[in-house]
Amino acid sequence: MKANSVGIISRLDVKDPKGYIADMVKKLSYKVKLFLDPVTASLAGVAEATEIDEIYADLILIFGGDGTILRSLQLLPKPTPILGINMGEVGFLTVVDPETAFYMIDDVLDNYEVVERARLAVKLNDFELPCAMNEAVIITSRPAKISQFKIHVDGKFMEDFRADGVVIATPTGSTAYAMSAGGPILDPRVDGIIVVPLAPYKLSARPWVVPGESVVRLELMKEDKESMVVVDGQYTASVRKSDVLTFTRCDTPALFVKFGDKFYELVREKLGR
Amino acid sequence: MKANSVGIISRLDVKDPKGYIADMVKKLSYKVKLFLDPVTASLAGVAEATEIDEIYADLILIFGGDGTILRSLQLLPKPTPILGINMGEVGFLTVVDPETAFYMIDDVLDNYEVVERARLAVKLNDFELPCAMNEAVIITSRPAKISQFKIHVDGKFMEDFRADGVVIATPTGSTAYAMSAGGPILDPRVDGIIVVPLAPYKLSARPWVVPGESVVRLELMKEDKESMVVVDGQYTASVRKSDVLTFTRCDTPALFVKFGDKFYELVREKLGR
Amino acid sequence: MKANSVGIISRLDVKDPKGYIADMVKKLSYKVKLFLDPVTASLAGVAEATEIDEIYADLILIFGGDGTILRSLQLLPKPTPILGINMGEVGFLTVVDPETAFYMIDDVLDNYEVVERARLAVKLNDFELPCAMNEAVIITSRPAKISQFKIHVDGKFMEDFRADGVVIATPTGSTAYAMSAGGPILDPRVDGIIVVPLAPYKLSARPWVVPGESVVRLELMKEDKESMVVVDGQYTASVRKSDVLTFTRCDTPALFVKFGDKFYELVREKLGR
Amino acid sequence: MKANSVGIISRLDVKDPKGYIADMVKKLSYKVKLFLDPVTASLAGVAEATEIDEIYADLILIFGGDGTILRSLQLLPKPTPILGINMGEVGFLTVVDPETAFYMIDDVLDNYEVVERARLAVKLNDFELPCAMNEAVIITSRPAKISQFKIHVDGKFMEDFRADGVVIATPTGSTAYAMSAGGPILDPRVDGIIVVPLAPYKLSARPWVVPGESVVRLELMKEDKESMVVVDGQYTASVRKSDVLTFTRCDTPALFVKFGDKFYELVREKLGR
Repeated sequence: MKANSVGIISRLDVKDPKGYIADMVKKLSYKVKLFLDPVTASLAGVAEATEIDEIYADLILIFGGDGTILRSLQLLPKPTPILGINMGEVGFLTVVDPETAFYMIDDVLDNYEVVERARLAVKLNDFELPCAMNEAVIITSRPAKISQFKIHVDGKFMEDFRADGVVIATPTGSTAYAMSAGGPILDPRVDGIIVVPLAPYKLSARPWVVPGESVVRLELMKEDKESMVVVDGQYTASVRKSDVLTFTRCDTPALFVKFGDKFYELVREKLGR
Repeated sequence: MKANSVGIISRLDVKDPKGYIADMVKKLSYKVKLFLDPVTASLAGVAEATEIDEIYADLILIFGGDGTILRSLQLLPKPTPILGINMGEVGFLTVVDPETAFYMIDDVLDNYEVVERARLAVKLNDFELPCAMNEAVIITSRPAKISQFKIHVDGKFMEDFRADGVVIATPTGSTAYAMSAGGPILDPRVDGIIVVPLAPYKLSARPWVVPGESVVRLELMKEDKESMVVVDGQYTASVRKSDVLTFTRCDTPALFVKFGDKFYELVREKLGR
Repeated sequence: MKANSVGIISRLDVKDPKGYIADMVKKLSYKVKLFLDPVTASLAGVAEATEIDEIYADLILIFGGDGTILRSLQLLPKPTPILGINMGEVGFLTVVDPETAFYMIDDVLDNYEVVERARLAVKLNDFELPCAMNEAVIITSRPAKISQFKIHVDGKFMEDFRADGVVIATPTGSTAYAMSAGGPILDPRVDGIIVVPLAPYKLSARPWVVPGESVVRLELMKEDKESMVVVDGQYTASVRKSDVLTFTRCDTPALFVKFGDKFYELVREKLGR
Repeated sequence: MKANSVGIISRLDVKDPKGYIADMVKKLSYKVKLFLDPVTASLAGVAEATEIDEIYADLILIFGGDGTILRSLQLLPKPTPILGINMGEVGFLTVVDPETAFYMIDDVLDNYEVVERARLAVKLNDFELPCAMNEAVIITSRPAKISQFKIHVDGKFMEDFRADGVVIATPTGSTAYAMSAGGPILDPRVDGIIVVPLAPYKLSARPWVVPGESVVRLELMKEDKESMVVVDGQYTASVRKSDVLTFTRCDTPALFVKFGDKFYELVREKLGR
């Protein structure tokens, strides 16, 4: 595919002493229609800016870390292929460094492929929350206070346990919070949903992987404990006892510009130590 | 589907004081063409027996445990739907008890559905080993001696480690040896291959799940350690340093007669304690 | 030893439809000098009550669960042998049921032995927090937000990691929160301190056990994350970046009335499922 | 302490192209009474050699890896302080490189301190096996075949499980095989015995730490499975169903020459990846 219009988004508190972002803006301004989010516009000395939720472009460049991409995914008005450029340490979603990006960007815009990454639809009772790229975490609002959970998969009772919380993750999220909670590493191409109890108060709790097309249903069983659901570390909602959370495959996967395929290398490098 | 011919296989050392097997043979002899393996024929007082590798039937009843099914799967001459009847404790593959089986069998034979369970093709260099229903374990022949392994997935280097061995498992096998080695529990419908190091000599080893259509390639890196590959605890072959093991999806999945769906219940019951 | 004075403490929200507590008060009022905390006095219809922090007795009966004991340990004005009587499910510290306690109490008061259980002294900079019977948890105040920790043991750098938190536990606490975080089970007689990262963001984190006489020093490394330290789920204090937490053996161990020794049985029963 | 006589032991298959061992022999021959094991004598071109089990010296230098030390500990005729010099990668017991050892050895021999490291006495029925520096592993003789174990601690039933085996380890051994099996890392100063099931076939198995003065009793419960006990990877004995293995603190701890204290650094370096 070929991109005629490009959006550029930068991390809110980005530091760019070498001017990578301004250089990229200048270079691309000769080539394609550009939409700059306010942070990027300010860094590049451009007067006109577009809020993220109004950027309709063929392709989006994001300068920052994985968190910037997670936030943008919740704001963008339509599914758009993203190329993540890391402005600090390499991430699982921001795999290109700014110098490489600068030299490769012409080739990329002229001819790029798109990779789909499954996301998770999250419903709190009948209310739809943003889809999760990495995970939804359900956790007690008061840290270190245990709650009680009951999980059904496709209508079958799976498990109940007392725990600090539960992580429901995509394969992409298997290297993020789900990994910290003790989950397995999933190749992002696996079609599954990961369920990992967070600090469960029983010896036999184990991570699960269920089919990507499953309906995972989570109930909170304790009257007096207020909990919350956090989607991708970005969106938070309160959850109480009678509430039911439902997790299914999101209709719109995230789109990424294909750029090498270093998944196993990243796991060794980023998580190995 | 409707079965006109039925094979019956019994565990080699089966004990059947209540005569369940003889009763089943008698009941079915009025209804369908029967093929009895030698153990079953002997128990039922029938002269004519058929070796397992010559049983061509519409459906197979297996009296025994999961091990009997794993063994039969390696012997049967063609993929045939199996109904496992447990003659001791319930198993993940032998989910019906003999009394229930006796009362339900007419209905089952008249109208059964078949469930496919993915198996793993195992190649030692260019030599094809039997497909694995649960797992292939690669392990040093001298217990408690460490070996060194290197794993590639679809041509990408995944990980190397020193360990007692490696378990490469199907989702069905996630509740067998892979679970003991610390792997996650996979719903059998997930399309994936599980890779779990066995007693790895590094802190950062973690179970992996890769796509079901992957090519997993395992090399042994140590000159002086002889190892072996064990398929489903049934088939064993020696492995030496220059050898390469390759794991892919098996062309012929295992076929099971659908009989309830108690996967999550079984995990809680059988593995919970 | 023989008890001449007895304190009785009951859980704040205790339910006692069978009147076990009132019966015990009546029985003991003929035998020893009694001090009743306000909840107990109210349940027994006794006018005079003594606040927990003013109970000076030879022995304390606590009706409730492990939480009631953890709370009382922080309030009692001097180390006093405790006999925990469970008013719901059995606990690790409340091992006697109320009926058994009623029939055995005469024998106990006439001749009891005391078991010491090590506690952990917790210092936040120069400020002494209550000693921990089970554990101190250091955790980010906003759930599911990662922080960064650095740990020294006896002046030697042990490990640093990003995590939700850290659990520093006594052997007694090894069956409580430390177990949920993935720690080993320690026989309460082991002289050690357990250090377990909580949802660490690296693959190689592992639980540690260091000598009971060690000085464990924990620093928070992240500027912008507010955290808190929670002692036994009862006492909470805020922690910020420049703060240092120090853990050593507490000068005053907890004292328990010896009553059977069912540690391994309790682990199997309470945590096995 | 001051050493007047020194034994030198080298790994059976040691490679020493730079002549470190010969240099050390030459240097020390002017200073102390030397006892060279046959490998060392051959490398140093010295005619007279002493078998390891006849070396009575004040101090022993061992050139090799941890395995060489484990082997020597089983052969030496009396407890003697050991200084381990690594001839390849650094180990947990061989912490000095040969160049540093050469320059420091005069100071060491004139004034050294001894550190004790607890070992484990292992009894098979009434027969005493060599004490274990790291661990005793009980494992089925046929790899990947499960066995059944029952464990008592100080006469109390602790746990039974089906597993490939069990690791009973010292704190020193916590960074060796017990770590691979999923055990916690113990500071070597902790007074405890580690019990870790090896690939247990139940979800709730967890590592245990029991007091150093405990009596750990292990029974094999399965009739038909032959197993073996391996002490420190060096000594092997067969174990059958009626056999009972008993583990207690060894009367003679191992003695090491104090040389820095890099335990936590070694764990990070050697096991972190």
